[in-house]
Amino acid sequence: MSHAPTDLLSRRHTAIRQALAARGLDALAVTALPNILYLTNFKGSAAVVVLTADRLDFITDFRYVSAVEATRGTAWDCPGLNVIRVDTSYDETLAAVVARMPGARVGFEAANLTVSRHRWLGEKLQATSERAGPELVATEGLVEAARVRKDAYEIETLREAARRLSGVAACVVDEVRRGRREREVALAIDWRLRQAGFERSAFDTIVASGPNAALPHARPGERTFTEGDLVVLDFGGVYDSYCVDLTRTVSIGPAVPRAREIHAAVREAHDRAIEAVRPGASPFAIDAAARRVLEAQGLGEAFGHGTGHGLGLEVHEEPRISRRRPEDSPTAAVVAGMVFTIEPGAYLPGLGGVRIEDDVLVTETGVEVLTDVPMDLVEI
Amino acid sequence: MSHAPTDLLSRRHTAIRQALAARGLDALAVTALPNILYLTNFKGSAAVVVLTADRLDFITDFRYVSAVEATRGTAWDCPGLNVIRVDTSYDETLAAVVARMPGARVGFEAANLTVSRHRWLGEKLQATSERAGPELVATEGLVEAARVRKDAYEIETLREAARRLSGVAACVVDEVRRGRREREVALAIDWRLRQAGFERSAFDTIVASGPNAALPHARPGERTFTEGDLVVLDFGGVYDSYCVDLTRTVSIGPAVPRAREIHAAVREAHDRAIEAVRPGASPFAIDAAARRVLEAQGLGEAFGHGTGHGLGLEVHEEPRISRRRPEDSPTAAVVAGMVFTIEPGAYLPGLGGVRIEDDVLVTETGVEVLTDVPMDLVEI
Repeated sequence: MSHAPTDLLSRRHTAIRQALAARGLDALAVTALPNILYLTNFKGSAAVVVLTADRLDFITDFRYVSAVEATRGTAWDCPGLNVIRVDTSYDETLAAVVARMPGARVGFEAANLTVSRHRWLGEKLQATSERAGPELVATEGLVEAARVRKDAYEIETLREAARRLSGVAACVVDEVRRGRREREVALAIDWRLRQAGFERSAFDTIVASGPNAALPHARPGERTFTEGDLVVLDFGGVYDSYCVDLTRTVSIGPAVPRAREIHAAVREAHDRAIEAVRPGASPFAIDAAARRVLEAQGLGEAFGHGTGHGLGLEVHEEPRISRRRPEDSPTAAVVAGMVFTIEPGAYLPGLGGVRIEDDVLVTETGVEVLTDVPMDLVEI
Repeated sequence: MSHAPTDLLSRRHTAIRQALAARGLDALAVTALPNILYLTNFKGSAAVVVLTADRLDFITDFRYVSAVEATRGTAWDCPGLNVIRVDTSYDETLAAVVARMPGARVGFEAANLTVSRHRWLGEKLQATSERAGPELVATEGLVEAARVRKDAYEIETLREAARRLSGVAACVVDEVRRGRREREVALAIDWRLRQAGFERSAFDTIVASGPNAALPHARPGERTFTEGDLVVLDFGGVYDSYCVDLTRTVSIGPAVPRAREIHAAVREAHDRAIEAVRPGASPFAIDAAARRVLEAQGLGEAFGHGTGHGLGLEVHEEPRISRRRPEDSPTAAVVAGMVFTIEPGAYLPGLGGVRIEDDVLVTETGVEVLTDVPMDLVEI
C-alpha cells in the first residue's frame, strides 16, 4: 500500500464523484491500476474498483485481501472501502457488482477496457438483468483529469523522489569510464537506484554511447565506451509509487567542437523551456521555447520528440509537452501542481546525440525544478 | 531485436496467415507487443503490425526506424517487412494503412485493443472510406494460439534461460541469513539476475518471511529474518525476451515439525504434478495431481492459486494449469512444445507459507524439467 493520508483519498473520491454527477453517471468502474492506486492506495497487480456516490466497492483476489484489510484503522485507510473477494474471475465479480444496480448508468474507462472485456460484460449484464439492466457508458480520462494536478502528498513524494534521483545521478557519472560497456553501466545505475530507496527503475535504463546515442531509445548493449563518445544516460525510479526521470550526457575524453556546440544548444533549449513554465502557459508554448533554440542552430530536424511528459503514478502521463496544437491537447494550459519533464535532445545519425532532462513542478507563481544535478558537459 | 532466425519467422507468419484464411480474414492488425515481437523480432516499446497474405506492414516511430532497418540482411531479418514511419500518431497511421484495403475484412486483437481505440479507428475508417470501406472484425488469441507451442528457437532460449536461473537460485540461498531484511535480499537477487545475463527481472521479486510468507504475493519489506521463519523466494528473469520463473522456500534455523510437514506436502504435490505432465494430459488433471496431495494433508484450503502458468514472451500466458474445467479452458490438453511452471504452495495465515516452483517443457514422450535446483528444505 502507498500512504496517501485518508483525508486526501476522501478529496480524490469527491472530485471523481463530482465528475460522475456532472455526466449523469451513477457509478464508475475503474480498471486502470494507477487510477485504483490513486483512489485507494492499493499497489497490487490486480483489482477493480466500482465507485458510487456513497460507496467504493473494491474487488480483488485472495492474494491481496488480507493486505487490504490490514490497512483498516491506519492513517492511510481508504474511506468507504468495501472489499469483495473475486470468486471465479474478476469480470464475473464485476458483472455481479454492477448487476445489483438496475437502471444505473455505469461509466467504464474506455481507454482501459479492451473490446473483449467490454463485450463480455455487456452480454453478461444483458443475460443476468431482467428488464432495465445497468447501462455501460464509455468515459475518457475521468480519474486521469484529477491526477494531472498533484496534491500535497504527491508533491512531497515527487520532491523526495527527485532529490534521491539527483543523488543517484551525481554518482552515475563516476560509473562512466573508458573501456566499460553500456550494459555494465546500466546495471550499475539500476543498482544505485535500488540502493537509494527506489522500488524499481521507472523504465529500462538507457546508456547509449557513440553512434548509439543517436537513437533516443537505444538499449544498452555490449558496446565499449571509446575516446570521443558522447554517452546519453537516461534513467528513472519509482519511489513510493511515483516516477521521476533524468538524463545527462557525458563525453569520453575531450568533446570535439561540434559535440560541444550541440550540447550547448540542447542546454540552452532546456533552460528556455524551463523559463517558459508558469501557470497558464500552454504545453505547445513550452515545447516551442526549446524547439526555437534548436531550429535556430539547424538542429530542428535532429529533435524528433516532444520536450516533455507528465510524471506521477505513471512515467508518461499528461501533460504532454509537445508540438500538439493547444486545441488538440487535453491540457490547454499548465496549472500549479503539474509535474513534468523537460528533455530536449538532438540526434545526429552516425555522430551521436545529446539529451538533458530535468523534472519540474508548476507552482502558483512559476516553476520549481525538482531535480538538481550539474548540467555542464562532463568530459571523463 | 531478438534473434529468431528468418525461416522460423516465415513459419510463424504462415501459421497466422492460415488462421486468417480459415476465418475469412484478409489481414490482421496486431497491437499486442509480445505478438509483434513473435512475428518480427522487434523488442521496442511501440509498434503496430498489419499482416496480410503477402505483406507485413510494420508501423513504428522515428525512435525505432533505424534499429529496424539495421536488421535487413541479417540472419534474423523479418521476411516481407515493410517499414512505415508514424507521422502524427500510431492510430492515424494504422487507419491510413487499413483504409488502403477497401472491402477487406481486417481482424483486430480484441483482447489488446481498448474500446477507445476501437471506436476511434471505426469512426476514422468510416469517415475516410468511400462506399465499401474495410470492416474491422474482432479476433481472439490468433497469435497467442501459435505462441503456446514453442518452436526450436524458443525452446533453446527457454532451456538456456532456465539453466541460468538455476545458477542464480543456487547462489540466492547464500544471500539468506539471520538479521537480513527482505528488501535487501530481493535487491541481491535482482542484481544476480542481471549479472547472469538476464535483461531484467520477469516480475517484482518476492522475498516473504515469517507471517509474510502466508501472502502469496507479498512485497519485500523491512522485515528482518528471524529464527524459525520460513522464507519464500520467488523470482524470474527475462533472457533474450523469454521469461522463466522459480521459487524455493528456506527456513531460518531448524524448521518446526509443522513447517517440515507442510514443506514435504508441497514438495510431494510438486512432484506428482510434474509426473502428470505428458502430451494429451489436461491442465485440469495436472492441477488435480498436485491438489489431491495437499487436500489429503488438510491443506486444500491453504492452496488458493492454480498449479502453474505458461511461460514465453510473457511471464503469464497459456496454458493455465488450474482448476478450470477442460471444457472452459482454451487448452484442453497440453502438447509437446508447451512450457509452463509447476508451483504448488500452502499458506497458513499467521504461521507462514511454502511454495516450490520449477519450469517444465512438454516433450513428445513426457516432460523435461528445465530448472535444476535442489528441493530439500534448506535450514540456514
